[in-house]
Amino acid sequence: MDQNTKPGVDLGPLPELIGYVLRRAQLVVFQDFFAAFAPYDIRPAQFAVLTVIERNPGLTQSQVAAALGIKRTNFVGLLNALETRGLAERRQTARDRRSYALYLTADGAALMRKLKPVLKAHESRMVAKVGADGRDRLLALLHEIAEA
Amino acid sequence: MDQNTKPGVDLGPLPELIGYVLRRAQLVVFQDFFAAFAPYDIRPAQFAVLTVIERNPGLTQSQVAAALGIKRTNFVGLLNALETRGLAERRQTARDRRSYALYLTADGAALMRKLKPVLKAHESRMVAKVGADGRDRLLALLHEIAEA
Repeated sequence: MDQNTKPGVDLGPLPELIGYVLRRAQLVVFQDFFAAFAPYDIRPAQFAVLTVIERNPGLTQSQVAAALGIKRTNFVGLLNALETRGLAERRQTARDRRSYALYLTADGAALMRKLKPVLKAHESRMVAKVGADGRDRLLALLHEIAEA
Repeated sequence: MDQNTKPGVDLGPLPELIGYVLRRAQLVVFQDFFAAFAPYDIRPAQFAVLTVIERNPGLTQSQVAAALGIKRTNFVGLLNALETRGLAERRQTARDRRSYALYLTADGAALMRKLKPVLKAHESRMVAKVGADGRDRLLALLHEIAEA
């Protein structure tokens, strides 16, 4: 049921506020992601980090964090967890001993291959809510909002 | 700069995933909200709770939490903070001694009046990113996504 029409509770201006409705939609999409990826114990931010490392082996921690808009402190914890699980690794760079380059391990790469159909099925469920055309319009509008 | 075109980092499928782009957009909107409401020390979830209590005085905790899709455990902490600050209050209901009805205090109601122009300015900045027509289309699509 639409939250607008839920009987008895007046949400006032909330259902017309971009931030409120964005948050409600994001939580619904993440719920589906959590459920689909739970057997692999992978959360959305972890998936994003693994994707960027897979696509750009050898980037530094700061580069990956910046590309995803993740704060450095949060990123370190995230990466520690992936490294402990043997999915990603830090390698010291020759150029700067304080800087680490990031790579997937063989296990990390294998996991990413396994996750491809899981991601595809999740995304299909989300697209089904608005149709392929709705998806394109939604992504375009969201990119406009996300631009600084 | 669009994250799609940020030089040197390949985000792979992420900029085409509804969940990823929703999250990026939501964070940008919340950043603006945080900055605008920081002088009043009010975060988005607190604002939503105060709005629902203001519009529906006497609702129970479970009703407010359900209307906003907030988990009970998170809601209790949220409400405790608002009560400690003297913005909202729990009153025991005659019918059920374990159940509490929620009300704004006079300070809470005064704060909500002060926040109206702050909210309006925040929302105007967000709408400016997509235009009034884009806003309407975005809200409609987001409501479709948010429906279970």
